Amino acid sequence: MVEAVKQKGNNEKRRRILDGALKAFAKKGFYNTKVSEIASEAGVADGTIYLYFKNKDDLLISLFEDRMEWIIERLSSEMEQTDGGFAEKLALFIRLHFMLVLENQDLAEFITVELRQSAKFVKEYSNPKFGDYLKMLQGLLEQAQQAGELRQELDARLVSRAIFGALDEVLLQLSLSTKLDVAEVERRTAMLSDMFIGGLAP
Amino acid sequence: MVEAVKQKGNNEKRRRILDGALKAFAKKGFYNTKVSEIASEAGVADGTIYLYFKNKDDLLISLFEDRMEWIIERLSSEMEQTDGGFAEKLALFIRLHFMLVLENQDLAEFITVELRQSAKFVKEYSNPKFGDYLKMLQGLLEQAQQAGELRQELDARLVSRAIFGALDEVLLQLSLSTKLDVAEVERRTAMLSDMFIGGLAP
Repeated sequence: MVEAVKQKGNNEKRRRILDGALKAFAKKGFYNTKVSEIASEAGVADGTIYLYFKNKDDLLISLFEDRMEWIIERLSSEMEQTDGGFAEKLALFIRLHFMLVLENQDLAEFITVELRQSAKFVKEYSNPKFGDYLKMLQGLLEQAQQAGELRQELDARLVSRAIFGALDEVLLQLSLSTKLDVAEVERRTAMLSDMFIGGLAP
Repeated sequence: MVEAVKQKGNNEKRRRILDGALKAFAKKGFYNTKVSEIASEAGVADGTIYLYFKNKDDLLISLFEDRMEWIIERLSSEMEQTDGGFAEKLALFIRLHFMLVLENQDLAEFITVELRQSAKFVKEYSNPKFGDYLKMLQGLLEQAQQAGELRQELDARLVSRAIFGALDEVLLQLSLSTKLDVAEVERRTAMLSDMFIGGLAP
């Protein structure tokens, strides 16, 4: 019982540090943020951070994993609720990707900008959560291929990577933008869905 | 005359430092590379670097601008020589983007990995060369729209950004890959061209 309470307290503190890190990174960027500034945002002592995380790179990776879990869970649950065909599902996937910028601009900027500034993240980390995200998109494409809704000769793995790249670049643009609204997100969703489903040719 | 010789010597030294930086970044990554290691690769004294560049971020941006100029010139001259329609031109654009990894893997990795690790580059630098690159792609799309080869309702600016994102992500994958050949580059070029021109639907 005491252990369970302690565990709960620990988890809450860990969560507070992660939330504080996201706020601090959004204000000053990953490289310019000091661990003491994260502690201050989280309302914990500087040394406490090191009870939970080895260093700033480790904190960044943990923050990414935590938020990706949330993103993937939300995507799965929304996708499951759609009865529509491939076109509708892809549009939903794209919309949810872009909506992140309206729901949580700090998180959108963290994923498209701050994350890439960690050499450890980009070059050394195997990134299983990003793998899960890509597999979800690839699964959607393979299902559509089986249903005859997608060209058979397409390499679902390569195409899922290309679609991710396009969405990520547009999300980066959105997350650095100052004027944002649902209409703009919808406009971009429609244009990218049309491009991927029907192509650029008339 | 003496000034011209001196100028030429300066340019050569600057070029040697840029070449050395590319090699050093490829070996140890942007963050782990010391200025003294760049000097050693370039065959100049450590202090010489600071006669040409303010700091490592400044060197990274100069290296990017120098190489982008070369990439843009090559793209322009190859695109001008093609009589084909939009589909052919877009395929050529994609092929040239991917071929970078076979022609110069260090440069491909620099552009897709190292560059993003500079906070200054990502958040503060206005990046006119990348603007030129995007404008070239956007111009290609607008020309095709005027010729009726591209759907009229598409936003050429947004689409050029999305295409760039897709190509960049696939180039990143290629540049971190260990087995690479022309056939693989051609396979990816064909698949992405087909996807953009004709869409994913059968």
